[in-house]
Amino acid sequence: MADQPLLLQLIDHLQCLPGVGPKSAQRMALHLLQRDRAAGAALAVVLAEAVQSIGHCRVCRTLTEDDVCAICRSADRDDRLLCVVETPADVFALEQATTFRGRYFVLGGRLSPLDGVGPSELGMDHLQQRLATLRPDEVILATTTTVEGEATAHYISEMAAGLGLATTRIAHGVPLGGELEFVDGGTLAHAFAGRRRVDAGESI
Amino acid sequence: MADQPLLLQLIDHLQCLPGVGPKSAQRMALHLLQRDRAAGAALAVVLAEAVQSIGHCRVCRTLTEDDVCAICRSADRDDRLLCVVETPADVFALEQATTFRGRYFVLGGRLSPLDGVGPSELGMDHLQQRLATLRPDEVILATTTTVEGEATAHYISEMAAGLGLATTRIAHGVPLGGELEFVDGGTLAHAFAGRRRVDAGESI
Repeated sequence: MADQPLLLQLIDHLQCLPGVGPKSAQRMALHLLQRDRAAGAALAVVLAEAVQSIGHCRVCRTLTEDDVCAICRSADRDDRLLCVVETPADVFALEQATTFRGRYFVLGGRLSPLDGVGPSELGMDHLQQRLATLRPDEVILATTTTVEGEATAHYISEMAAGLGLATTRIAHGVPLGGELEFVDGGTLAHAFAGRRRVDAGESI
Repeated sequence: MADQPLLLQLIDHLQCLPGVGPKSAQRMALHLLQRDRAAGAALAVVLAEAVQSIGHCRVCRTLTEDDVCAICRSADRDDRLLCVVETPADVFALEQATTFRGRYFVLGGRLSPLDGVGPSELGMDHLQQRLATLRPDEVILATTTTVEGEATAHYISEMAAGLGLATTRIAHGVPLGGELEFVDGGTLAHAFAGRRRVDAGESI
């Protein structure tokens, strides 16, 4: 492959990006070469540096080039709240959508013994240690509602209970603006079973 | 921006790729960092090399890292046919779809005086020289059917006529498998006006 023209090599390599096939890769390569070489050069530099130096935060295990990530270093965050998520993308999503100002712990996946993902792959010993030293008032579980995500949430809630810590789980149900007829059956059944009492005068 | 976390810088820079917004860029960055760092590193190397060393072929003006591109160097191609296209992407498309074995000339755009694209920006003097020395039996015009593409084709056909060379234009009409009711009006009118006589026994 190394004796292919460089342009074809670039088109090949761009296809390592998720969602990029031969046609998009060709369009990307020609765009960069014909219109925006400076941006292409800058991307190459940042990409090389990123794959070289980004590792995991020693405290919360998210992706960072530092020993400890910005959120874990920040003195402005609330140590009484610890939110456990599956991936660094979940941290981005929560940071953008919510006003949560506590700490995070990133598992990097969910328990799935058949795929060889057990407690040690998810850093559960690390999480146990973190819970024991931080002793947050509330451990918020934000794992997905797949079978593996639920098993992971259960595992962590047991761990927290063992340490005498309170645990909450983010709500699952009908999305805002979702019409019942278009919501999938599993979600609807879950939302129906998880209905809450509404008291007079309480905001819904 | 340089004091942003490296991961955010990478997500920013990936958005220089056409069709990539913040969400896709985030997905790409996390995919490369979590699952395929080797591919990310290889992409960075090829991309840096490509934007650094890919230039234009001295003969046909397509993108290549060599002084003269592989097609122009090849002794297997037919010097009696020269196909004029707008972009390097058109060369890829024709090479993949047709059995054309002649030579190419890549204009790098089409005549558009209002945008400051005149004959010299498209290397018309270069093309004139090429036509005069190669003297192909047929100059095939494969520019697009936009107003600018047609003007460009007209300009080149005049140039070829001045040198006593025959010129052809690739056919425009209803796409294969296209149902008339879904073809746009301009294409249909063009196809209707350009109808050809079918003689008995001739394959259609």
